[in-house]
Amino acid sequence: MKKATQFAKISASLLVTCGLLLGTFTADNAVAADKKKTYHWRLAQTWPSNFPIFGDAVKNMVKMVKTMSDGRLIIRVDSKNKHKAPLGIFDMVRAGQYDMGHSASYYWKGKDPVFMPFTTMPFGMIAAEQYAWFYYGGGMALMEKAYAKHNLLSFPGGNTGNQMGGWFRKEIKTVDDLKGLKMRIPGFAGEVISKLGVAVTNIPPGELYTSLDRGTIDALEWVGPSLDLNMGFHKIAPYYYTGWHEPGTELQFLVNKKRFEKLPADLREILVVAMKTAAYDMFAQSYHASAENLALIRKDYPNIKITTFPKEIIDRLKVENDKLIKEMSAKNPAFKEVIDSQKAYMEKARDWTRISDFAYLKDNVSR
Amino acid sequence: MKKATQFAKISASLLVTCGLLLGTFTADNAVAADKKKTYHWRLAQTWPSNFPIFGDAVKNMVKMVKTMSDGRLIIRVDSKNKHKAPLGIFDMVRAGQYDMGHSASYYWKGKDPVFMPFTTMPFGMIAAEQYAWFYYGGGMALMEKAYAKHNLLSFPGGNTGNQMGGWFRKEIKTVDDLKGLKMRIPGFAGEVISKLGVAVTNIPPGELYTSLDRGTIDALEWVGPSLDLNMGFHKIAPYYYTGWHEPGTELQFLVNKKRFEKLPADLREILVVAMKTAAYDMFAQSYHASAENLALIRKDYPNIKITTFPKEIIDRLKVENDKLIKEMSAKNPAFKEVIDSQKAYMEKARDWTRISDFAYLKDNVSR
Repeated sequence: MKKATQFAKISASLLVTCGLLLGTFTADNAVAADKKKTYHWRLAQTWPSNFPIFGDAVKNMVKMVKTMSDGRLIIRVDSKNKHKAPLGIFDMVRAGQYDMGHSASYYWKGKDPVFMPFTTMPFGMIAAEQYAWFYYGGGMALMEKAYAKHNLLSFPGGNTGNQMGGWFRKEIKTVDDLKGLKMRIPGFAGEVISKLGVAVTNIPPGELYTSLDRGTIDALEWVGPSLDLNMGFHKIAPYYYTGWHEPGTELQFLVNKKRFEKLPADLREILVVAMKTAAYDMFAQSYHASAENLALIRKDYPNIKITTFPKEIIDRLKVENDKLIKEMSAKNPAFKEVIDSQKAYMEKARDWTRISDFAYLKDNVSR
Repeated sequence: MKKATQFAKISASLLVTCGLLLGTFTADNAVAADKKKTYHWRLAQTWPSNFPIFGDAVKNMVKMVKTMSDGRLIIRVDSKNKHKAPLGIFDMVRAGQYDMGHSASYYWKGKDPVFMPFTTMPFGMIAAEQYAWFYYGGGMALMEKAYAKHNLLSFPGGNTGNQMGGWFRKEIKTVDDLKGLKMRIPGFAGEVISKLGVAVTNIPPGELYTSLDRGTIDALEWVGPSLDLNMGFHKIAPYYYTGWHEPGTELQFLVNKKRFEKLPADLREILVVAMKTAAYDMFAQSYHASAENLALIRKDYPNIKITTFPKEIIDRLKVENDKLIKEMSAKNPAFKEVIDSQKAYMEKARDWTRISDFAYLKDNVSR
């Protein structure tokens, strides 16, 4: 039995050593495995598949996240062709059907007007002013507050740049020319311009060209040269008016807050930075596409008259805009808080814009 | 011997099993360890310690990289107080003394004028136009080409926004008022304005206030309200002129190319995205700080007259600027290639600026 005892002892000792070694490695590996866990997320976007610029911002974000996370956070994108609910992003992300979405905050003004000013406001800030407000002037904190009660986080999702006032079949010389004019201009801007007698109608994007061509509508606004050119409006409406209603339209990344909090810290930061960069990048891409497409319009359609609404109209629009905002502020303290923050910020930021880019451009915009 | 043999066999078998298991785990762990390798990088910046905004861009980048990499890429920052070579960043990063740097491309125009236009040019693009050029209009490829032969990579490093034309003790009404005027205005802009008779001098930042106060100089340019307020110039020079010479000053992250290529793919992307975001963020921060500080100047120093150079002066500056650029282009084909790209791009981008933000601001800059 001696040898057997000895054998048993040595065997046990070997097994213990082996076990200890294995234990050490498996414990290490458990941490490594957790760190290496792959998260599969799903994103729903308001836009159709392969929609330029807006859709590119999403693709850009997804790609950055994949590479920076070494494949640990993979985001699948569903377009409206798939989920069939372009204006259901808020609800789907809140409920956790999707982990995140790409849309625009002003689409949720029916749920609460507080969401509207995080996109843009008529006669509001231009993109540079608005980014300063978001990131250094208290805007992000106000947006967080507005969305927190819905289990949502909202982040800037890409800027279109200053949107054009729209395509008109006839020249607009006076306020009277607007009376009875049938125009597609959705949302709050539509409410404002309706006060000047415009008959505001809503028409699905796919029917816009035909409606304008057949005279079902007399005018419409879309985005700007970056996205308008594909729609072909320049072929049937020779007046292209500069903007007043969406001076710095910022799209939105919506994130389910509980899902976000389950990500490890490095992936959270990777996602936040990728969304921020994709948003900034979209502003640069929009600028580029508008510059390129405007040059094409100038070259191929020299009859297009690019012009600005007369001061009389702008002044009336401002009055109606202020009146509506005042009414909404009186009813909704959260909306008022955001509007007041933007107004106070814009006063300072606009003064800087005035003596910097604007003063500079005055000497340098000759054509 | 039977038992001994049996013992040896079982022991051997146990050891093999144990060894195989260990082998499997160590092999796995070797991969994990490599992936988890921590890279310690060093960055040299042109600016002193705790320099606001410019230095914040570096801190912002370093922090994003640390969090996104889960501590696998740690960047230590040396200010000029430490390395004592504010204008030696190019050489130190090229030689590998530092892995990366934060500076401005136009500081290297003595090495090659091709580097100059990647920062800004008199009467050149504003920030929004320039970002569109960098990322969508071919700018990044041209910058990569210019730096590749020096084992360097260059990336946008943060925009100051449109810089102010400077602080003047006396009003400038005509070109004659500039003749013999002693002004601190470094670099290419200094060359341009010297053609109008300005006596351009260079004075270290620490001596600027005293020099202006004592009349050693009559005028100086620095940055804009964001950074000028700390310098106190508004206390001794009541004329603050809007800008012409640095419409979109973009700082620079310089990276040693060989070191960059040694990073794993995820860390390379993390670094690139963090630099890009920090650059964009600095533009927003500059905008914010300028807006806030301008409001302070308006309130506390209402005697400061913020004004624009007369058209006569701007026109002369344009002529001299074009002349100098033409001379440099004739001598340096690489410089010419970048300038031609910027000119062609600006023509299109400026047309868009004109009908978007500029047209909008015309109706909305009242004070």
